[in-house]
Amino acid sequence: MAVRLVNKKIKAPFFVVNPKSFLFGESLMDLARHADQLAEEYPIDILFTAPLTELAIVAKECQNLIVTAQHMDNIECGDSMGRVFAESLKHIGVQAVVLNHADNPMSCSDLSKAIQRAKDVGLLTIVCADSGQEGQALAVLGPDIVLAEPTELIGSHQISDRNYVISTIEKIKKINPCVLVEQGAGIRSAQDVAELLRLGADGVGVTSGIVKAEKPIEMMKEMIEVVAIYGKKGSIL
Amino acid sequence: MAVRLVNKKIKAPFFVVNPKSFLFGESLMDLARHADQLAEEYPIDILFTAPLTELAIVAKECQNLIVTAQHMDNIECGDSMGRVFAESLKHIGVQAVVLNHADNPMSCSDLSKAIQRAKDVGLLTIVCADSGQEGQALAVLGPDIVLAEPTELIGSHQISDRNYVISTIEKIKKINPCVLVEQGAGIRSAQDVAELLRLGADGVGVTSGIVKAEKPIEMMKEMIEVVAIYGKKGSIL
Amino acid sequence: MAVRLVNKKIKAPFFVVNPKSFLFGESLMDLARHADQLAEEYPIDILFTAPLTELAIVAKECQNLIVTAQHMDNIECGDSMGRVFAESLKHIGVQAVVLNHADNPMSCSDLSKAIQRAKDVGLLTIVCADSGQEGQALAVLGPDIVLAEPTELIGSHQISDRNYVISTIEKIKKINPCVLVEQGAGIRSAQDVAELLRLGADGVGVTSGIVKAEKPIEMMKEMIEVVAIYGKKGSIL
Amino acid sequence: MAVRLVNKKIKAPFFVVNPKSFLFGESLMDLARHADQLAEEYPIDILFTAPLTELAIVAKECQNLIVTAQHMDNIECGDSMGRVFAESLKHIGVQAVVLNHADNPMSCSDLSKAIQRAKDVGLLTIVCADSGQEGQALAVLGPDIVLAEPTELIGSHQISDRNYVISTIEKIKKINPCVLVEQGAGIRSAQDVAELLRLGADGVGVTSGIVKAEKPIEMMKEMIEVVAIYGKKGSIL
Repeated sequence: MAVRLVNKKIKAPFFVVNPKSFLFGESLMDLARHADQLAEEYPIDILFTAPLTELAIVAKECQNLIVTAQHMDNIECGDSMGRVFAESLKHIGVQAVVLNHADNPMSCSDLSKAIQRAKDVGLLTIVCADSGQEGQALAVLGPDIVLAEPTELIGSHQISDRNYVISTIEKIKKINPCVLVEQGAGIRSAQDVAELLRLGADGVGVTSGIVKAEKPIEMMKEMIEVVAIYGKKGSIL
Repeated sequence: MAVRLVNKKIKAPFFVVNPKSFLFGESLMDLARHADQLAEEYPIDILFTAPLTELAIVAKECQNLIVTAQHMDNIECGDSMGRVFAESLKHIGVQAVVLNHADNPMSCSDLSKAIQRAKDVGLLTIVCADSGQEGQALAVLGPDIVLAEPTELIGSHQISDRNYVISTIEKIKKINPCVLVEQGAGIRSAQDVAELLRLGADGVGVTSGIVKAEKPIEMMKEMIEVVAIYGKKGSIL
Repeated sequence: MAVRLVNKKIKAPFFVVNPKSFLFGESLMDLARHADQLAEEYPIDILFTAPLTELAIVAKECQNLIVTAQHMDNIECGDSMGRVFAESLKHIGVQAVVLNHADNPMSCSDLSKAIQRAKDVGLLTIVCADSGQEGQALAVLGPDIVLAEPTELIGSHQISDRNYVISTIEKIKKINPCVLVEQGAGIRSAQDVAELLRLGADGVGVTSGIVKAEKPIEMMKEMIEVVAIYGKKGSIL
Repeated sequence: MAVRLVNKKIKAPFFVVNPKSFLFGESLMDLARHADQLAEEYPIDILFTAPLTELAIVAKECQNLIVTAQHMDNIECGDSMGRVFAESLKHIGVQAVVLNHADNPMSCSDLSKAIQRAKDVGLLTIVCADSGQEGQALAVLGPDIVLAEPTELIGSHQISDRNYVISTIEKIKKINPCVLVEQGAGIRSAQDVAELLRLGADGVGVTSGIVKAEKPIEMMKEMIEVVAIYGKKGSIL
């Protein structure tokens, strides 16, 4: 069994399985267990997100995944009701959080404080940006990963165009070279994953491309294999 | 072990232990286990809320409590990220949800739909109102319980005044006699609990009165005993 | 020149010209001036909404319209920035406010208080509901008008179906017979307006049907004439 | 009468009179007229904010002020109701907008797009930041002015401490030297204004310090005079 590191750093190339709210219960666990096996098999970081309510179950069963919350609020433990706080996430075994997704937009002030709260308890942060310029602004706040995907492409069948991908990565790294850049949106095949890595993405995140695939588990496997090969060979992919 | 009923109705008098986000991890589970024991011992309904992220753990260990989510969104299973949906709550063993708390205000339209979603999967609903008139409006939407507490008293050291309590209950029942009325806010002792039941509350919910008590578990026990006695003897308490 | 009444009650049948944010500047004023003339000519109440920023100009020029704000916040005059408060609206000559539109959803608590604030300074209130049941809930709060239109029909080419219209009006009046019921959504012609009045609507509100008509001013005129005729003859229309 | 320039750039040192929602109607216009006179008298830029509903009136009467909206939404002219859009602001004579104030927090994505919309129609932008780091992030988005005031000091009786002011300005200019830095929060006298300019602020904005002063107009005059003197003499103040 892989040892779960505290406050580990993500290393490129990484892969994010993000089933959003498409899956829950047994179908979620089935995907999670297969992802966990792949994370044991391949020497790459695999992040796996789950609905807030099922994170504890995923974290308990899957020792090799970087279990990731789909949202966290800028609140501390205390007089607040029904919101998500860092200490509880850490306690149940979560290792990373997605912040500022289009479904849970945060003000820049809340986002800045939430990143700090996450760091304080040892959670990695992935923040979502809608454009290269927004990605630059968010990179200033010092998250681990910036996910740069135009909102209008989420759920679409088309990956961001080459120029967008290249210029976005360049812009973000210029502001903060420590930040990893994830690309998502519109990925439908292992070829799309490879293409984004070739263009310079540090990691790739997929939702529809997996959950709406004819054979989700096999699709996930193919995509992760591409990342693993790329991780080994680097840019000659 | 008590059998967990599907779609059971809450019966008065009931008690709600609502630790909000004051507790998590072991201190939360400690309170939950003691509440669970009391729920086995006494023939009254005890609802226990927990942070979204720890509901699965509470539900797994505590068979006698009505495990209650502190919030649920008006979304369905699908393309949504980091929000709380009925199917997942039901799957992990949650039996009730609090909706429209001051920390998670909902539009009337979302609230109306969320109540329906909860009913569809078999979750009980507790909706929060800020005044008697708002309580009446929300009673129209057909929740199981209306929690009528003025926002300005939340966390205070003073229970709502007698007239407010009596008139609120009367107003809400006039609109929808099937709705149970919970009172909360400012409860600091078993005497406060008894007073609210005497004034006609169907149930009582407590946060600060327990988590900030010198001995939280004993305070909770005293409060629940009062409810149990009241349940047996009725208004002669 | 018609005298502008303070705290007047709307009387049925009424008509609402709601250009939303489709018009501003001269094209807005052009529509407003024509509506104002029609309001002088016909003995019916014509409400005219405008963007918050241009209400003062419309109110200054149009003495016969019931100038209506498209939103108001639940705040009082004081330490708040960039939000809309009742006293300022009243000062600039506004006579009514729309609350809880799908573009500015309010919690039930805020809505209840905002209705009260509006009453306190003498503004009429139109609250938006998404369904018959929500309309009932909002009728409890005592607004002057409930606008009952399913969000999914806003901007569409189809009016709400007969049964929805009839049952919605019935439900709302049952809870609060003093409330007027407005119907909107999908109205494209004077015939649609007549149909809704025949089905029992107290008033009709139109956006796309006017601003997207080939000849907006003529379309508005036709619609208002139908309302005026209906007001005279009643149900024999 | 001063000619109103289109797309003018603000020059340091500038002053912002920000009555928020403390004033409306005649008391607002009285302050505005005096501010307008000072703007004619002194060769410095004076921005004056007003409630959304009274901007048109202020802009019509006050030719020398840079009339400033307290908020603007990221929407375009069209199918939206009760929200604030750039074209209408421009049409009524507004020249600048405050974005992301604590009372109207915006997601980074909305903020980035709203700044662009403002630029497209020729409105200056002032964006609010809660900390030096957030100020840096927002400076990336290219606003004209960043207002850097810790939310906890808004309305207090104490200006931000020297180190905070100096380091905030330095941080923001490092990211984007074209951005002007405004300081606010806790300013109670002309001395406070002078102190902030000496510490390097490009401009100063005041709410409570004016509206809660014994003699608001005289206080405003004193503060503006200090800015004018500073503008003439520079750092020897």
